[in-house]
Amino acid sequence: MLDADAYAVRSPDTPFEPLSIERRDPRSNDVVISILFCGVCHSDLHTARSEWGGTRYPCVPGHEIVGRVSAVGGSVTKFKEGDLVGVGCMVDSCQRCEPCREGLEQFCDNGFTGTYNGPAQETGDNTYGGYSSTIVVREEFVLAIRHPEADLAGVAPLLCAGITTWSPLRHWNAGPGKKVGVVGIGGLGHMGVKLARALGAHVVAFTTSPNKVEDAKALGAHEVVVSRNPDEMKIHSGSFDFILNTVAAPHELDPFLALLKRDGTMTLVGVPPEPHPSPSVGLLVMKRKSLAGSLIGGIPETQEMLDFCAEHGILSDIEMIRMQEIDGAYDRMARSDVKYRFVIDMASLAPAAE
Amino acid sequence: MLDADAYAVRSPDTPFEPLSIERRDPRSNDVVISILFCGVCHSDLHTARSEWGGTRYPCVPGHEIVGRVSAVGGSVTKFKEGDLVGVGCMVDSCQRCEPCREGLEQFCDNGFTGTYNGPAQETGDNTYGGYSSTIVVREEFVLAIRHPEADLAGVAPLLCAGITTWSPLRHWNAGPGKKVGVVGIGGLGHMGVKLARALGAHVVAFTTSPNKVEDAKALGAHEVVVSRNPDEMKIHSGSFDFILNTVAAPHELDPFLALLKRDGTMTLVGVPPEPHPSPSVGLLVMKRKSLAGSLIGGIPETQEMLDFCAEHGILSDIEMIRMQEIDGAYDRMARSDVKYRFVIDMASLAPAAE
Repeated sequence: MLDADAYAVRSPDTPFEPLSIERRDPRSNDVVISILFCGVCHSDLHTARSEWGGTRYPCVPGHEIVGRVSAVGGSVTKFKEGDLVGVGCMVDSCQRCEPCREGLEQFCDNGFTGTYNGPAQETGDNTYGGYSSTIVVREEFVLAIRHPEADLAGVAPLLCAGITTWSPLRHWNAGPGKKVGVVGIGGLGHMGVKLARALGAHVVAFTTSPNKVEDAKALGAHEVVVSRNPDEMKIHSGSFDFILNTVAAPHELDPFLALLKRDGTMTLVGVPPEPHPSPSVGLLVMKRKSLAGSLIGGIPETQEMLDFCAEHGILSDIEMIRMQEIDGAYDRMARSDVKYRFVIDMASLAPAAE
Repeated sequence: MLDADAYAVRSPDTPFEPLSIERRDPRSNDVVISILFCGVCHSDLHTARSEWGGTRYPCVPGHEIVGRVSAVGGSVTKFKEGDLVGVGCMVDSCQRCEPCREGLEQFCDNGFTGTYNGPAQETGDNTYGGYSSTIVVREEFVLAIRHPEADLAGVAPLLCAGITTWSPLRHWNAGPGKKVGVVGIGGLGHMGVKLARALGAHVVAFTTSPNKVEDAKALGAHEVVVSRNPDEMKIHSGSFDFILNTVAAPHELDPFLALLKRDGTMTLVGVPPEPHPSPSVGLLVMKRKSLAGSLIGGIPETQEMLDFCAEHGILSDIEMIRMQEIDGAYDRMARSDVKYRFVIDMASLAPAAE
């Protein structure tokens, strides 16, 4: 087994602490990765604090992982020592079912293995995520990173926030000639704005905060609407091809459904802890609109997104922290006090850095 | 003006009574129709009793109209005296907007004119529907009927119940190799089952009533599920490409959303008087499912449906009534006590018949 340094929580209400963990000896198809940076996703907080239930402790979160290959198994063909690589929300799946064969491993009929809070496919063991010095992942779930190395920290959030917005934007054909809304300008939404803009859509950002208007324009939104202002909303009535709604907090969906044109779709990527108010069936019926959901994205589309971002120079806007600052970062993230993603510099884990 | 006999209500809580109305003198593009049969739709009841608000009195309902052409205007080319024709939920629209040009007049940007409870496009007058001896309708909203004349009464409900289920079944590609659910076995649902079966789909009917199981099989369902039985429901988990939900009463959507496969859609064609319980976002997200709405159908697809039904010998199952029996029929319809559509024999309106 390979020893690794990690940061873990041992219960829902205790702070993070250092933990020595073991990674499996690499199998023939495994890639061993020295983690350089790891993004901090809201799901990390939900899981660490067991807000969704079902957390196995100790819990080592982190599924926005970038690093360098330090070793590969004998049958690995896509990667070699020294390569820059990424790992997202999944580290395994059955690889046999129809969704897996289609490259939609997030919909694996047998359930994908999360990068943390497992269980691992064969052993049922807990999995440990990216708040760690090292991770061992089968080749099929390792992504190639083609960004310049200097940009690496800003690449990390693409592995979850990036793909979670990219996948629905692509699936519902955001692009030239399309008017696309992005609701919520946080970790997910700020990537949604950047990606939709780069895909060629006319992008309208929605925020409840008048003080985020300039920020959203700086991210690339052509227009920004303060969604609490009915007059501003009304101007856009019946005009959107697609709305990507990144807000997980319960909120009224109808004001956004009203902005869709005929055959338009609003897709939710956040699961609210309590239900949203029930959407108006009349709004759906009168113009054949759809309300949909979307879950992260498959491995091939994640690679496609990373390559697109490398080509277009797209990165997440980040605030770098040391591993030891993670509890404070969670508290700030819970208040939406971050522009727009915390990323942990894993060099801070090394003994010399402490 | 043309004199016509009709049955009307004068207020939400008074019974139907005979009323003499006037139809406009035919314009050059108008078709004058002697009405032979008119189906009784639940919308008739909602409107007559002003349950949706906004009813203009006197109110002459009826938008499942079949009859014979008695005269045509000088520029009419598609119809001639003696032709069997139908009129559905719409009698006019702007004919200029994008939806109208696409043949989706139900989504007319300027609002279509309902066959009853108008307002008429230019005059703003109230429109009077099919509980009447005669109607005058512009050629573009008149449908050709190619069924044998003896089947005419069973054709009438195709003009609303038929197209309202046909349009979503076609839009969401019900056909060979697809597993399609139809929720609710009433006026709409019984047509949904017949049409989905004839389109080549594997059809599963859902009913809350164990005593409707055999009826639903007789209509053409390959399988029938009693939706109140969780064990029966569970067998179909994650297996449907498409579910057509015809139930307007508020009900839990989640048990049906759970039956959709990845990328499946459930489409609602009934608007509940009070909201359904809010659908689970988790169910939408986990398999990229959609919840959608659909509204009647456009004129070209209504003609397509009528021709398909003529070719396949598809009719609505009906119970014939005399015009004078309409109040009792409404009471029975409100209790879902009809298999599956009342149709009024308009011969009963003639003085000799009274």
